[in-house]
Amino acid sequence: MELWYSQLQTDNIKFSIKVKEHLYTGKSPYQQIDIFDSEEMGIFLIIDGIVMLTSKDEFIYHDMIVHVPLATNPAIKKALVIGGGDGGTVRELTRYSSIEKIDMVEIDEMVVAAAKKFLPLTAGRLDDPRVSLYFEDGAEFLRNTKEKYDLIIVDSTDPIGPGEGLFTNEFYQNCYNALTDDGILVNQCESPFYEKNAKEMRRAISKINRLFPISEVYQYHMPTYPSGHWLFGFASKKFHPLHDFRPEKWTELGIETKYYNTDVHRGAFMLPTYVREQISRVEKSE
Amino acid sequence: MELWYSQLQTDNIKFSIKVKEHLYTGKSPYQQIDIFDSEEMGIFLIIDGIVMLTSKDEFIYHDMIVHVPLATNPAIKKALVIGGGDGGTVRELTRYSSIEKIDMVEIDEMVVAAAKKFLPLTAGRLDDPRVSLYFEDGAEFLRNTKEKYDLIIVDSTDPIGPGEGLFTNEFYQNCYNALTDDGILVNQCESPFYEKNAKEMRRAISKINRLFPISEVYQYHMPTYPSGHWLFGFASKKFHPLHDFRPEKWTELGIETKYYNTDVHRGAFMLPTYVREQISRVEKSE
Repeated sequence: MELWYSQLQTDNIKFSIKVKEHLYTGKSPYQQIDIFDSEEMGIFLIIDGIVMLTSKDEFIYHDMIVHVPLATNPAIKKALVIGGGDGGTVRELTRYSSIEKIDMVEIDEMVVAAAKKFLPLTAGRLDDPRVSLYFEDGAEFLRNTKEKYDLIIVDSTDPIGPGEGLFTNEFYQNCYNALTDDGILVNQCESPFYEKNAKEMRRAISKINRLFPISEVYQYHMPTYPSGHWLFGFASKKFHPLHDFRPEKWTELGIETKYYNTDVHRGAFMLPTYVREQISRVEKSE
Repeated sequence: MELWYSQLQTDNIKFSIKVKEHLYTGKSPYQQIDIFDSEEMGIFLIIDGIVMLTSKDEFIYHDMIVHVPLATNPAIKKALVIGGGDGGTVRELTRYSSIEKIDMVEIDEMVVAAAKKFLPLTAGRLDDPRVSLYFEDGAEFLRNTKEKYDLIIVDSTDPIGPGEGLFTNEFYQNCYNALTDDGILVNQCESPFYEKNAKEMRRAISKINRLFPISEVYQYHMPTYPSGHWLFGFASKKFHPLHDFRPEKWTELGIETKYYNTDVHRGAFMLPTYVREQISRVEKSE
């Protein structure tokens, strides 16, 4: 018998992974959570039918969401992670001894519980003493917090279902308000290739552009996400990810990574022409 | 009724495109050729069951295989294309008025005939007066040619079936011999992500490294190829793709591109750490 997990990446494109074992299935108040084991991708996490992470390529996503802002400003001390229930973003943050406090706000406790049980690879650092977990809505948390952060990372699902509130004007405004004067916001920013993702990318960029004096987009190769060409937004009140980047400062820290390096940092901002054009259309329409 | 084309990208990963119409099927002495129409990817070409190109993302591959060497040495006058039966590589070459002669050697005349009929998007410039078509084995052509080229582009299928002879030591040596003293070789170099492709990548690099004083690898985002993270090799007797690159010279030419630009040129050589490590293991084992 062959068991395959399949995802419709668009209405017309399907991506499938051969499954060894269906390890976990659970329905939380927010979403459907499934975890599988596979030959090719190792353990992988599915939420509402969509690949969130696989053991084989999660290092790419987590390297790029954390090390780009930390290498831009190695003085970051207080970080907030919105979403990121698998724990991978927190894991990378805990590798910086300079970081004093990490708040993680994940709406769905069941995701964290499942990750702790089946994905120690990513969830293994959630018990670091610097980490506080809040199981509540990220948008609501930001509406109410009095805390100021040097870094906010929006490690969200796509803007449908529980992730939707993390793509609104009010949410980005509250991120801005909760950042220090040299704060950085990094957000999951979809993909430029399939129109379904590109539309969400342009919407997110247009909202962030209006608020932050510095707003850039960077790319990485993410094999299990639609098209494999995926983006993060980098917004900041003060630090530019290239002009203020001092590669030797990051190299001195001696952090070992499998995807990120200081050249990749720079190359990630060198976007193909068709991606630039989408971003500049957003800017012109404002 | 739903019709889907599916490709096993590895034994455990499947990629599928919803099909509107099966436009063409033919069996040549070398391979099975199929052409489909689709909502998402437009017309697409399949050889021996594997995606060769789709109308939606071919611009990425053809931009990167042609404009990187041409921007490194805009004085290129004589080019040889091995493979490339769809015509997309020749199309990009013909955009340079400085190019005087393009020889294209494609083993399979049926691929060219099918592309001319169903893929004018890529095949439309094969009748440029500077182009000569040779329907013969590329390895054999290079064994016998007395011609010297400024650029050889190996636009091959994977190293199985008729493409196999384009990944041998003898083939790369004959490329070297057929290049002028400032000649450049660009070759399809597989992908670093799935081991099946990465093994072939390392084999190709190891052979090319032994012959050429300059040997680099560059990357691009190719959504319909396995993992979406794909590579070309850049080997040269004289020109380094970064040190000898003068972006303003290329920009002056006024060539419009959808993927390539002079920043992408640089960023393409900024490889993730796990890719660098594979390449440096190859170098150490020599």
